[in-house]
Amino acid sequence: MPREITAFSNPLVKRVQALREKRHRREEGLFLAEGLRILTEARETGRVPRFLFFAAASAAHPLVRALVHAVEAAGGEAVETTPAILSKLSGKDNPQAVVGVFDQFETRLDQLDRGAASIFLVAERLRDPGNLGTILRTGDAVGAGGLILVGDCVDPFSVEAVRASMGALFTVPIVRTGWEEFLAWLRGGPGQLVGLSLQTEHDYRAVAYAAPTFLLTGNEAQGLPDDYEAACDLLVKLPMLGKADSLNAAVATAVMAYEVLARHR
Amino acid sequence: MPREITAFSNPLVKRVQALREKRHRREEGLFLAEGLRILTEARETGRVPRFLFFAAASAAHPLVRALVHAVEAAGGEAVETTPAILSKLSGKDNPQAVVGVFDQFETRLDQLDRGAASIFLVAERLRDPGNLGTILRTGDAVGAGGLILVGDCVDPFSVEAVRASMGALFTVPIVRTGWEEFLAWLRGGPGQLVGLSLQTEHDYRAVAYAAPTFLLTGNEAQGLPDDYEAACDLLVKLPMLGKADSLNAAVATAVMAYEVLARHR
Repeated sequence: MPREITAFSNPLVKRVQALREKRHRREEGLFLAEGLRILTEARETGRVPRFLFFAAASAAHPLVRALVHAVEAAGGEAVETTPAILSKLSGKDNPQAVVGVFDQFETRLDQLDRGAASIFLVAERLRDPGNLGTILRTGDAVGAGGLILVGDCVDPFSVEAVRASMGALFTVPIVRTGWEEFLAWLRGGPGQLVGLSLQTEHDYRAVAYAAPTFLLTGNEAQGLPDDYEAACDLLVKLPMLGKADSLNAAVATAVMAYEVLARHR
Repeated sequence: MPREITAFSNPLVKRVQALREKRHRREEGLFLAEGLRILTEARETGRVPRFLFFAAASAAHPLVRALVHAVEAAGGEAVETTPAILSKLSGKDNPQAVVGVFDQFETRLDQLDRGAASIFLVAERLRDPGNLGTILRTGDAVGAGGLILVGDCVDPFSVEAVRASMGALFTVPIVRTGWEEFLAWLRGGPGQLVGLSLQTEHDYRAVAYAAPTFLLTGNEAQGLPDDYEAACDLLVKLPMLGKADSLNAAVATAVMAYEVLARHR
């Protein structure tokens, strides 16, 4: 039976709300995800929240009932609550019907199966959580075998990243690693490392891509360091016809990923 | 000579800060843009802020001096101020060196030159300011002739949209119009209307694009209404290999725009 919480001062509410901060997420090893669609997708991939908050008004919804059932069967706790508390937890004026608290999870490099997909995404010092989530979502759409985060990237379990991923956080394996470790692993098997750069003459449409392709995107403001570019098998550029000479990092990654997908098909 | 403002209570500071809200932007016909790079780009396109706030510590920077000179030559006002006030104006902890207050501007449909570009972007009920700014930035990169906002779209002059556009707000003509007006104008000349849809069998790589191509992207959550799709010359879909069956709207627009650009080249 779900318990009911209606007080902002409830210790569990305070604890869950604190997960909006990176420090608390790291200490607890937990993170927040919200929305019926995303939590249902998570459940279908076998991830069930440890705590599930749902609005009393949504209690009869079949998907909410299925989530409550799954949470309780897995030994978690379902909590019926108010829209105001859901709003507090999600940080949004119009909260979703459900907020889930999940255990963080991670894939190790040696767990990635490079035969399982023809594209892998690699991001280096990605700083914007929206970009990270959007890249995960693109990764899901192109059937990427994983997103490899190199160096000091933004937390993939931040509320903004999870939200922007629209559920892809649960479907695309995420690896966090260092550059040297990544390179050593990459060179231990087949794989073409393709870097996105402004300092090359290779147009992205005029080159050959070998599967599996590892698409490397650099930091939003600075792009890739020179020695990272030097380690790539291929550098490619996207045409820039405008005055700004730049693209959003998640956009550039997606244009490249769809090109590689089309060429592999 | 720039005047100096160091008090939060200064009426101009309060007035400019209020431009973070849509109501005040509309009433004043003004908007905020920040950052040396973006303001310099704006100046190069002939747009000079009415008010320019700059940090005292940046006063000697040649680009800041050029901006101050341009603002004063145009009859505007340059204001030397503190990092704390710049932070207040921009809403960021680490404020940029300059914040400018510009007159809003707009392009009318009948001012768009459909012979000037082979791609135009059209967005319908776009709700996210980050998406709008990102689409403008993509529009700049692909040399789009304009971004046509149809129906109830988010304000392109919101702080988030301007920021995400990275200056493309000043380089890509923006039209705000209704669907009927847009269609009537479109059908008065050459132009292929291509809608992005999940309800079609036409793969985006397997069709022919006619210049100028008008790329139509629908609302983030709902996509295009059925009658909008029916009015298109062509509906195309992007492959979706994952579980989520969706892409970020700005990402989908960019993948399509780069495809059309490559095919027109």
